[in-house]
Amino acid sequence: MNDPDRRFSDEERAGLYRAIYERRDVRSQFLPDPIPRPVLARLLKAAHHAPSVGFMQPWDFILIDSLDVRQQVLASYNEENAKAAKNYSGERQQTYRSLKLQGIVESPMNLCITCDRSRGGTHVLGRNSIVDMDLFSTCLAVQNLWLAARAEGIGVGWVSIIDQSKLAHILNLPDNVYPLAYLCMGYVSEFLDQPELETKGWRSRLPLEELVHSNGWGVALDDEVLLEQLKK
Amino acid sequence: MNDPDRRFSDEERAGLYRAIYERRDVRSQFLPDPIPRPVLARLLKAAHHAPSVGFMQPWDFILIDSLDVRQQVLASYNEENAKAAKNYSGERQQTYRSLKLQGIVESPMNLCITCDRSRGGTHVLGRNSIVDMDLFSTCLAVQNLWLAARAEGIGVGWVSIIDQSKLAHILNLPDNVYPLAYLCMGYVSEFLDQPELETKGWRSRLPLEELVHSNGWGVALDDEVLLEQLKK
Repeated sequence: MNDPDRRFSDEERAGLYRAIYERRDVRSQFLPDPIPRPVLARLLKAAHHAPSVGFMQPWDFILIDSLDVRQQVLASYNEENAKAAKNYSGERQQTYRSLKLQGIVESPMNLCITCDRSRGGTHVLGRNSIVDMDLFSTCLAVQNLWLAARAEGIGVGWVSIIDQSKLAHILNLPDNVYPLAYLCMGYVSEFLDQPELETKGWRSRLPLEELVHSNGWGVALDDEVLLEQLKK
Repeated sequence: MNDPDRRFSDEERAGLYRAIYERRDVRSQFLPDPIPRPVLARLLKAAHHAPSVGFMQPWDFILIDSLDVRQQVLASYNEENAKAAKNYSGERQQTYRSLKLQGIVESPMNLCITCDRSRGGTHVLGRNSIVDMDLFSTCLAVQNLWLAARAEGIGVGWVSIIDQSKLAHILNLPDNVYPLAYLCMGYVSEFLDQPELETKGWRSRLPLEELVHSNGWGVALDDEVLLEQLKK
């Protein structure tokens, strides 16, 4: 039994918050050094200990170091990204084109975390009302891995500009398996102080106090003390 | 600049892993004690520092302490859960009915984390190929909060057996806002050693080494050292 009185020490707690605040979506700073196996095993175990609806554990982990496979994925990225760039015009398009949005080939390891939508049979506990709970559970595994990676000094970048059906074909996935997250992983030259999209002026961090409601949408918090804390 | 050589200390790293391994989906162990505002603020800030596609930050946080609102949510849970129980028969149904799957009224605070699907305009960077990236980002915020809560000694339970359209109605959400996660939060009498669904024999933890593939689906890892590490 984990006695709730066995509190986290200040440093343990600080370690968690440090991972949360210093985690970055890495695209440009990857180093080629391989990830040692014990470290890689710790990252995968962290992901595997995420919560999942009905203890479904719908995830699988496809480790990708083959340059051939990565180049196929990169080709899909390039195609999708060319389409995406057309969504913008003028200065905004220039900024978009200047952003590096993936490190598929520069990082030493790619990882696709998939969601097996048929795992656990027809009736998964807790998945009767919201069918996508299995996808959501898989996201929680992604975040566990992302934070553990930061604590190990490893950068992770989620590449979302990929055609998922092409990715499924490249990785030979069965029909019931969805390629939820395509991640690039590796040691880095630095972790940026702030998200790159913030420093490059793409978009700012929203004020948290404006995102908190009380008992229903649009009802402001009637709690000056909490509001002050949220602004800090 | 976060120098990658400024490594996490052993205790910082241990703190993160402890949160990952000792986090539980809490339903039965809530205590009524209120969550102090500085702690609540830290949890919300942790969620707000999750990664999001195109730095979209699509989340809002609806804090719910109104008993009236919680009882409306509980009514939707009861309705959905009665339907869900019919999916099972015999001993499995008995086990299902014996499981406590929510702590909506016993916990002192509920929190709905929503996803505003229109935030950031029509073209969110990185969301052109996978439209659900905003939902996935919101899940990452949930996991940040869940881990931070564990480090603060606070239990969190995700109630997924709710009709989302009823929940949206109860919370007065605009059409573009999806109620992604309905969470119960509070201090607990204990954190269980293992997931409750595991100890109650509902489902076992899958062997991680069987979930790891090499460069494509179904291709076994050709790395005995890593396989051994995954089994530990």
